[in-house]
Amino acid sequence: MFTKKTIYLDHAATTPLEPKVLKVMLPYLKEKFGNPSSLSTLGVEAKTAVKEARLIISKILNCEPEEIIFEGSGTESDNHALIGTALANRARGNHLITSVIEHHAVLHACEFLESQGFEVTYLPVDKEGLVNLEMLAESIRPETILVSIMYANNEIGTIQLLSEISTIIKTKNPQILFHTDACQAAGYLDLNVKTLGVDLITINGSKIYGPKGIGALYVKNGTAIQPIIHGGAQENSKRAGTENVAGIVGLSKALELAQKNKETENKRLLALRDKLISGSLKIKNVSLNGSAEKRLSNNVNITIKGINGEKVMMELDKLGIACSIGSACTSGNPDPSHVILALGKGYEEARGSLRFTLGHNNTEKDINYLIKILPQVIQMLKANP
Amino acid sequence: MFTKKTIYLDHAATTPLEPKVLKVMLPYLKEKFGNPSSLSTLGVEAKTAVKEARLIISKILNCEPEEIIFEGSGTESDNHALIGTALANRARGNHLITSVIEHHAVLHACEFLESQGFEVTYLPVDKEGLVNLEMLAESIRPETILVSIMYANNEIGTIQLLSEISTIIKTKNPQILFHTDACQAAGYLDLNVKTLGVDLITINGSKIYGPKGIGALYVKNGTAIQPIIHGGAQENSKRAGTENVAGIVGLSKALELAQKNKETENKRLLALRDKLISGSLKIKNVSLNGSAEKRLSNNVNITIKGINGEKVMMELDKLGIACSIGSACTSGNPDPSHVILALGKGYEEARGSLRFTLGHNNTEKDINYLIKILPQVIQMLKANP
Repeated sequence: MFTKKTIYLDHAATTPLEPKVLKVMLPYLKEKFGNPSSLSTLGVEAKTAVKEARLIISKILNCEPEEIIFEGSGTESDNHALIGTALANRARGNHLITSVIEHHAVLHACEFLESQGFEVTYLPVDKEGLVNLEMLAESIRPETILVSIMYANNEIGTIQLLSEISTIIKTKNPQILFHTDACQAAGYLDLNVKTLGVDLITINGSKIYGPKGIGALYVKNGTAIQPIIHGGAQENSKRAGTENVAGIVGLSKALELAQKNKETENKRLLALRDKLISGSLKIKNVSLNGSAEKRLSNNVNITIKGINGEKVMMELDKLGIACSIGSACTSGNPDPSHVILALGKGYEEARGSLRFTLGHNNTEKDINYLIKILPQVIQMLKANP
Repeated sequence: MFTKKTIYLDHAATTPLEPKVLKVMLPYLKEKFGNPSSLSTLGVEAKTAVKEARLIISKILNCEPEEIIFEGSGTESDNHALIGTALANRARGNHLITSVIEHHAVLHACEFLESQGFEVTYLPVDKEGLVNLEMLAESIRPETILVSIMYANNEIGTIQLLSEISTIIKTKNPQILFHTDACQAAGYLDLNVKTLGVDLITINGSKIYGPKGIGALYVKNGTAIQPIIHGGAQENSKRAGTENVAGIVGLSKALELAQKNKETENKRLLALRDKLISGSLKIKNVSLNGSAEKRLSNNVNITIKGINGEKVMMELDKLGIACSIGSACTSGNPDPSHVILALGKGYEEARGSLRFTLGHNNTEKDINYLIKILPQVIQMLKANP
């Protein structure tokens, strides 16, 4: 019935490694294998590579190189931002604020902190996925030490108004720290920490065509933060463990490329995204999840009423189209998406949601093909539920 | 005066990536880039690779695959073993036992636990670096929950009597958990968790010709352990974050190769090691640190009385020989080695210590060259201190 081909539309789950990124990593997987903490020539060579990677990232973030800490993943960076600052600032208070649609890396770090005696306020979002700013202002207490609100959501692509959020927080109390999880945003949006008004920002490699197993945390100078991984004096004694030199070099190159090309790529992706959205909305019982305007250029998330999203996903996979339900990190989890539920949708609508996230290699032809076969798949599943 | 050539004698700091290991990693850095948590074909392919890597490692450790947790480094694994079990077993007690010569990944994790209300006993070692077993037995209390003793020391190569330690612990109280940091041992010694009598074991990639930024923790089924990195449901909900698939595949291959070849390689290294030791001891004022018998096949650690080890190291580096003082993780730290001091040596002797750690590419010619130039370097430094 359909021709088999491979169309990858799951870039929010993970991206392929950009060949240019692999190229700069390879020397550090071969002859330049030194430990940056060693004082020998090989060690100094590795240390220099880490230093240069830090400099590249700091320029993009408009910060100082020493404000960048390399981490083992975006998840570890989120954990470090929350747990590391909460423990270090406990004397100032025991209250944190976040949103209900955060990634589990943030939500479960919050739950851990609750088990350690901290209190956490989880802000609701509106039907587009935007954090309620009035409730944010109201929830700030004298004992609030940190607010963590993601830059762009991994499931529905909604982009939060970070600088407005920062103004609300800092007007109430400039001492309150503001962290943002920018794992999904880093490839598409501006990362200038000064204009965003953030004290901490999490990025990672595997969502921006960089390697898996690497992340980075920006921590504004003067911010009290403890390590969550203790040991050697690496990363200015803030994150112990032999540096993943190849990963660090790869992350910096991936971020550099993504940021350099983001205007052109966003424009291209926006056209494809909007074509896919309008094509999908022509199908009966299909609705868009998230915001039509404040949305990542590569994200499409729809609900197909009355149809299980997982079944659609599996059928599309057979036809060579990779997409996802919920986020990759909760796939295999039978619970419906906490993000879709937070938009005010019901259990069945959450179960019927489907995420397409576009990337470098996708073309108009891919989108045309998907728009053509999606109604057929839905029709087929309705006939044989 | 000397011919420049590169002789790497710092394998305890980090090892080059074995080409066979890089070869199995590359597909996961190229076309097989899926996220193991994705349900698509690409995701399943990645998930299968992680599953196979887990199986390979479990066979070597003589354990079940689900008893292996992949971590971001040896340091993270040590931290997870200590902090994860301490927090999860707090109801049973708040006391831990370790040794004074552990890696900082263990010592600083212990300090963190002390800041959280736990008590830690730091066992002394004898002049060879062996943990005092009588004191171990005496230090066990009703509230002891965990003992962590490294398998082989990173600076002096001393191999602890793990199965005897296990018997002492388990005879007193079978509920007490026993963790060993096997980062340095994994390439050279037996890792059968049943004969070693351990409940938790830490290994890592970067010391066994595998990649940096990857480690693994064996946790015996039934052991209560919390995550220290919270988020998605990866690693059976024990360690969150998108799996570093290439790193995981690389770690399993590196461990497989190291364990397969260890008898032949140990025999070869032992001959080189003993040649280097006896050659060094012929130099005036040179003494061996650590045990002559219970020692890793690749470790030589000497003290040159009256000479600063760092200066010798820097001179050797100019001559193309990479070695180290203390461990790589504390290089750049002006404090003398905590391990050498623990052997009962003085500050000056600790400052005069030098570590040579042999590996795959070292030959008898390398050792002959080092034995020839080391006295000349020492002589030169004595003349021009």
